[in-house]
Amino acid sequence: MARTRSEDRLDRAMDVFWQRGYYDTSIEELMSRTGLHRAAVYGSFRSKRGLFEATLRRYQEKVVAAFVAPIARPDATLADIDQFFRGIHDAAAQSDKRWGCLMINTASEVSPHIRSVERIVSLYLANLRGFFHRASVNARTRGDFRSETDVDQVADYLTGAVLGLWTLGRCPVPALALSHYLQGVRGYLDSLRPGAKRRGPSGSRADRAS
Amino acid sequence: MARTRSEDRLDRAMDVFWQRGYYDTSIEELMSRTGLHRAAVYGSFRSKRGLFEATLRRYQEKVVAAFVAPIARPDATLADIDQFFRGIHDAAAQSDKRWGCLMINTASEVSPHIRSVERIVSLYLANLRGFFHRASVNARTRGDFRSETDVDQVADYLTGAVLGLWTLGRCPVPALALSHYLQGVRGYLDSLRPGAKRRGPSGSRADRAS
Repeated sequence: MARTRSEDRLDRAMDVFWQRGYYDTSIEELMSRTGLHRAAVYGSFRSKRGLFEATLRRYQEKVVAAFVAPIARPDATLADIDQFFRGIHDAAAQSDKRWGCLMINTASEVSPHIRSVERIVSLYLANLRGFFHRASVNARTRGDFRSETDVDQVADYLTGAVLGLWTLGRCPVPALALSHYLQGVRGYLDSLRPGAKRRGPSGSRADRAS
Repeated sequence: MARTRSEDRLDRAMDVFWQRGYYDTSIEELMSRTGLHRAAVYGSFRSKRGLFEATLRRYQEKVVAAFVAPIARPDATLADIDQFFRGIHDAAAQSDKRWGCLMINTASEVSPHIRSVERIVSLYLANLRGFFHRASVNARTRGDFRSETDVDQVADYLTGAVLGLWTLGRCPVPALALSHYLQGVRGYLDSLRPGAKRRGPSGSRADRAS
């Protein structure tokens, strides 16, 4: 499907914000990289912030939707959670550009400061958490997770694990660190299986180790 | 110990960068918040970047050193790793300021763009990983971890988990999400104990679940 000229320009603006972040991107750079005139930026989007928020929506439709596809289905379960994390890992590790995820870069850089951006990020995180929660309920029902699994805990942990993996992908670390991180998340998921030895409330043994 | 006037000003500059990030902080704001004159910024630090790097060094000495104390000892082991993560969790969760960790905010926002900052962040991450590695070797030797535990994998996972926890602390999520995340990391650590059922290469069961 051919992109329209305005979609093409929005994609280029998205790439600039994705690579450089919101605050390091100037209107001048946006104009030179997208071919948009200053009047078009202010006329169509009112401000740099308006254009940024339009690129976040574009990113949701174009990038996030593809990543979350495995866990967005109503019948998603443990294997889909696993596929989702492998997908993020492969995307983060194959690139030497260290762009990370635009939404998660924005969560850290911009969402504490701009309320309208915080709302977009909050919705993104709540959706992600909701997908993990539903998939965890399914996994528990199917017997992939133990019957006493706390699906709220799992959903919050996995949401944080997504932040960890993408932030790691933006950091100066070797690619092996990313696959080791993925192994850790998978080890956690494995520990929820019925076959894994039950250890009481998580962390209780570490308390006694001191 | 009384702070000198210049340390006090450096601390205030650190707080500005910590809260707002590097790129959203102007020289004008630094001057008004610290009492430094423009000539002093350029005379003492050569540039905004020079001042920023001085605040990163100050942050290392003052904040990072206190957080890593439990895992920095040569005989640190599993209980110390656990104490370290509880310390981060408590700091991130008690604050509603959502400042996160200056070093990790910087890793994501600045390190892909400024080589001298990347070097500071790389060293920080390498030190953190080194502490986790040594503590994991100690834990394996003491029998807190299974004898076949891959300490390189553990060290990389835990480094990424620090990024995840602090990034979560800068995001618009409820405090409960942070404690759920901590529980997940502790569950992972528990799964490395000799008493936990060995499951072969981590993640292998998830592969077969599809």
